[in-house]
Amino acid sequence: MGVSTPALADSVRITGDGVDILDRRVYPFAREWVHCATLEDVAVAIERMVTQSSGPLFATTAGMTLAAREIAGYGPEAAEERLRAAGRRLIATRPTNNHIRDAVHAILAATVDGPLAGAPGEELAPAVAKAAAGHDAAYRAGARALGRHAAALLPDGARVLTHCWGDAYLVGAVQAAQESGKRLEFVCTETRPYLQGARLTAATLVEMGYRPTVITDGMVPSALADGLADVALTASDRVTMDGHVVNKVGTLAVALAAQAFGAPFYVLSHAPDPLSPGIADVEIEHRDGEEVLHVLGARSAAEGTRGYYPAFDATPPHLVTRIVTERGAFEPARVSDHFAAGPAPGGLGAP
Amino acid sequence: MGVSTPALADSVRITGDGVDILDRRVYPFAREWVHCATLEDVAVAIERMVTQSSGPLFATTAGMTLAAREIAGYGPEAAEERLRAAGRRLIATRPTNNHIRDAVHAILAATVDGPLAGAPGEELAPAVAKAAAGHDAAYRAGARALGRHAAALLPDGARVLTHCWGDAYLVGAVQAAQESGKRLEFVCTETRPYLQGARLTAATLVEMGYRPTVITDGMVPSALADGLADVALTASDRVTMDGHVVNKVGTLAVALAAQAFGAPFYVLSHAPDPLSPGIADVEIEHRDGEEVLHVLGARSAAEGTRGYYPAFDATPPHLVTRIVTERGAFEPARVSDHFAAGPAPGGLGAP
Repeated sequence: MGVSTPALADSVRITGDGVDILDRRVYPFAREWVHCATLEDVAVAIERMVTQSSGPLFATTAGMTLAAREIAGYGPEAAEERLRAAGRRLIATRPTNNHIRDAVHAILAATVDGPLAGAPGEELAPAVAKAAAGHDAAYRAGARALGRHAAALLPDGARVLTHCWGDAYLVGAVQAAQESGKRLEFVCTETRPYLQGARLTAATLVEMGYRPTVITDGMVPSALADGLADVALTASDRVTMDGHVVNKVGTLAVALAAQAFGAPFYVLSHAPDPLSPGIADVEIEHRDGEEVLHVLGARSAAEGTRGYYPAFDATPPHLVTRIVTERGAFEPARVSDHFAAGPAPGGLGAP
Repeated sequence: MGVSTPALADSVRITGDGVDILDRRVYPFAREWVHCATLEDVAVAIERMVTQSSGPLFATTAGMTLAAREIAGYGPEAAEERLRAAGRRLIATRPTNNHIRDAVHAILAATVDGPLAGAPGEELAPAVAKAAAGHDAAYRAGARALGRHAAALLPDGARVLTHCWGDAYLVGAVQAAQESGKRLEFVCTETRPYLQGARLTAATLVEMGYRPTVITDGMVPSALADGLADVALTASDRVTMDGHVVNKVGTLAVALAAQAFGAPFYVLSHAPDPLSPGIADVEIEHRDGEEVLHVLGARSAAEGTRGYYPAFDATPPHLVTRIVTERGAFEPARVSDHFAAGPAPGGLGAP
């Protein structure tokens, strides 16, 4: 089996007149790109879940690049204000994952908060584009590095249970396993309400040469009890410095089942978030409950009900076997050691 | 709030020319009845999930009544053979829930295996119909009794998390709570792949005067963590004599979450099954994995995947707080004490 690069690994594209984002709400049943002509379009696309997981990071760097084009003719003050406003708008889209915030901060740090403080638009514009591209490249390098650390934890023949869509991290781990000749099998939770597992993870694994088994979210204990899966592996939207894992709602249920059946639970994360010492520092996004009352656009729940949709849940450190960052695999309680483990391959995740 | 009787409590009807079964696959979005002209039609309806939960019990007694009509002109041997064949066909429809088996055995015990051994069709036919009606009545009386025992466990203001559709047991518990003036709130898992929770449980609770909250199956830990629910309550398809609970897949995930958050987990069951000493004695039905790859008839999973669909899972006794039968609330390890607790109100569940 060779090493594969799937379609979702290139799902945000900067074009001559905007940003095109692959619509993950309908993928793989349709391959539709949402064209964003303005930064506001990009922000709305993120809010509406056109893209998710690693997608918002790339949408953010692309959005900042789009904003940079606009400021080329601006004076220093107006250019800086426009850039900062663009960053605020993007950060406001979704509060739980720290990719967006970190991407904006990295771009500002490389420009108006750094060497280009006080520079006019014509200088800022190319510098922002360069910083954005650099951030993307660093993220991809980090995902490859953490993929290698993750693959090292998986025995040949591992039966890997996934939840939601681990995106660049999962692809990195699978590619690294392929490079080292390890055979893997996959069980994917469908991950309601958006079905990212049944659609994105499963389609990508099919693209990469596997035949994944899809289960409903309530079947995780059965899959472990029946020997269909023997290790659980998810990405994370944020990891706190004390080892809590914030990830797609349902991850905690996976962790509880893994513990009950003695299966290791590995979490992929570029790095813990230095701005989140503990779980109280993380805002859990609540989305419109109506989304839970529908499936693929069709009403799925009785009238007269209300939906509840916490987009993420928090898994405590004692339920996590290892948190795998681009610098290695850490016990959750010691995940802050990441920052003592030397520079990141891509330079992300610095405190 | 008065006491309500919902539509699903009367969802199998014997008519002049067959049996009409309310189609639970589409309820409440459509109220369609599947007309079964023959016993074979009834069996196929059960296999295809036209009805489920308590429904197959009523479909079984109705199916046996239908078979009895046919044998009115038969001699003793042919009548008996036809009746036994009808019972075998019904028992073969779905293996895990013991309602079907017990209903068939009760009807045979009251007729060809009992006082009417060797009787001709014209005597057997009315006796089968009477035994079938008696079994229905006993089941309903038992559900009311266990409902009272269950309601006694719920404090006023309890926030009850349900999984799948508890049917007569749940309705009995809610009616008993209403009779005693207890206020309840409900959180219903949607229960993929058939969405019985989002459709049947939620619609019935709306009918009974509540406004339930619907969550996806992966949100159970979040609902408990966030205080949306403080007690878990499910029915059971079978309870073994050593206290294992076999119920809709996902129940074990509910039990693990309840344990993690210190919430009691109550299970409703007419009685433990004397023919199931332990969990090894229970056959877990596996249904077509394609059902997991679809939602409400639409494809929900990527092509190239396979689905896995164990219809039930097994929750070990240590994760269950009490098993509530028509004779009381028992510690799971002592659930066989049910049989020392005096006659059942409806006479079901005798060993």
